[in-house]
Amino acid sequence: MPGWLCCPGFFPVTNPIGIFDSGLGGLTVYRALQKLLPHESLVYLGDTARVPYGTKSAPTVTEYSIENTEFLLERAAKIVVVACNTASAYAVPQLQAQFDVPIQGVLNPGAAHAATVTRNGHVGVIGTSGTIASDAYAQALRQINPDLQVTSQSCPLFVPLVEEGWLDRPETVSIAQTYLTPLLEAEVDTIILGCTHYPLLRAVIQQVVGESVTLIDSATATAEVVKDMLGRGGMLPPISANRDAGREHPAPTDHEFWVTDAPERFQRVGEIFLGHSLDNVRKV
Amino acid sequence: MPGWLCCPGFFPVTNPIGIFDSGLGGLTVYRALQKLLPHESLVYLGDTARVPYGTKSAPTVTEYSIENTEFLLERAAKIVVVACNTASAYAVPQLQAQFDVPIQGVLNPGAAHAATVTRNGHVGVIGTSGTIASDAYAQALRQINPDLQVTSQSCPLFVPLVEEGWLDRPETVSIAQTYLTPLLEAEVDTIILGCTHYPLLRAVIQQVVGESVTLIDSATATAEVVKDMLGRGGMLPPISANRDAGREHPAPTDHEFWVTDAPERFQRVGEIFLGHSLDNVRKV
Repeated sequence: MPGWLCCPGFFPVTNPIGIFDSGLGGLTVYRALQKLLPHESLVYLGDTARVPYGTKSAPTVTEYSIENTEFLLERAAKIVVVACNTASAYAVPQLQAQFDVPIQGVLNPGAAHAATVTRNGHVGVIGTSGTIASDAYAQALRQINPDLQVTSQSCPLFVPLVEEGWLDRPETVSIAQTYLTPLLEAEVDTIILGCTHYPLLRAVIQQVVGESVTLIDSATATAEVVKDMLGRGGMLPPISANRDAGREHPAPTDHEFWVTDAPERFQRVGEIFLGHSLDNVRKV
Repeated sequence: MPGWLCCPGFFPVTNPIGIFDSGLGGLTVYRALQKLLPHESLVYLGDTARVPYGTKSAPTVTEYSIENTEFLLERAAKIVVVACNTASAYAVPQLQAQFDVPIQGVLNPGAAHAATVTRNGHVGVIGTSGTIASDAYAQALRQINPDLQVTSQSCPLFVPLVEEGWLDRPETVSIAQTYLTPLLEAEVDTIILGCTHYPLLRAVIQQVVGESVTLIDSATATAEVVKDMLGRGGMLPPISANRDAGREHPAPTDHEFWVTDAPERFQRVGEIFLGHSLDNVRKV
């Protein structure tokens, strides 16, 4: 049992959940947490001065992740969610060893969910170059079930397509066909969307692979795991328990958005992710 | 006259030319310099830990550019070539004010060349979001000739397409058509390739815009300006004068490649730019 579970009182339950990502993509995780835990305060940090992490090395991504975690702890985070697949692949063990708060990446929840839903035992993983090169999803899947077959594919053009807002253009469909054909040939029946940007391409990906393939969104799976962790650790704010007991909801808690550079771009492109404008993005 | 022109002896003429870029793209400038000045030593720095600059703010890009310049001066550079359009747009005046060596960006040479070759006075500029948002090319062009009409277009998918090696795929042609149609509708007769990656898409771009539109490669224009600057400042190594006198070339000088992260990726993708492998890439 991790140390923090023994002393939940050490982190006030009303403290915020901290979330960091290399940039914007983690907003899909933010959205999932907001939906599942509407009474929590959320503090989001996008490391937009150094985005993307997907093409950078493990030591560099780990160094950046440590700095991001330190910032969130200064903002009194009671738990840190690593809402970036590359950072989850490279940095989570180091962060867990170094910091006292619970640290949760997006990788294990996605892998665990995929291992549960696959019917033929053949799982596909798509992600950035860094995430795929790390082989972290394949290792996590095989640790859950050594009999699983895993086929991985990096899709480097998906992130720029999302950030350009080209979510359903013919070029996007064509590029998705190129990337996803090897997974179909390998007869996977489940594909992990191993990058936080990819849920925005869900419709195109589903169209290309067909309805018989199940797409796993790590963001949703991670939000479920975070809720469970907080519940087990006695770290949910009282109002969540009230909500579960059917009592009235309070006014929405305030959320913070921080970036390391270019807040106006984050606000603008953030709308693609959230469907509404962000007017309170601050630069660290 | 800049101070450095008055005291060329201050920087030994055999010292290297320093080049920095946010990542790989500056290799097109490196290649142009190597071709035009084969007797110069070249030191290249790719800031791969913080690539790309195109989506980052002016203060952040300037801060990174100062650090890159300091590194090149530690490597005894006699001149610093800013082989990145975004850094050229944002940081060159600050670098020129702060450092004693000559600093040359890629922006003014490209603009000057375009202003010379346009026949109908209508110039197009394509680049990253940062370069286009800075409006620096348009300003440079209008400073040369206030009567020039300028139409600008950001092409955010071009860099990832190049780095994926998709230089002539149908999707690349289709995306180029989307980006370049507004320039054709504006009846430009000259287009500045305002990003160091874009010369690798020259064939596709030329195919889309047609042979009647002249494409300006800032890398080649910059190499010409650097050669001229070094010649005027008495900073060319003696052998260059010999070469111009028709004497035999020496053995190739040694070049250095430095990156701030992931040298193996730089080596691999660098081949797309240079057509041969790089086996001496070192991490700072």
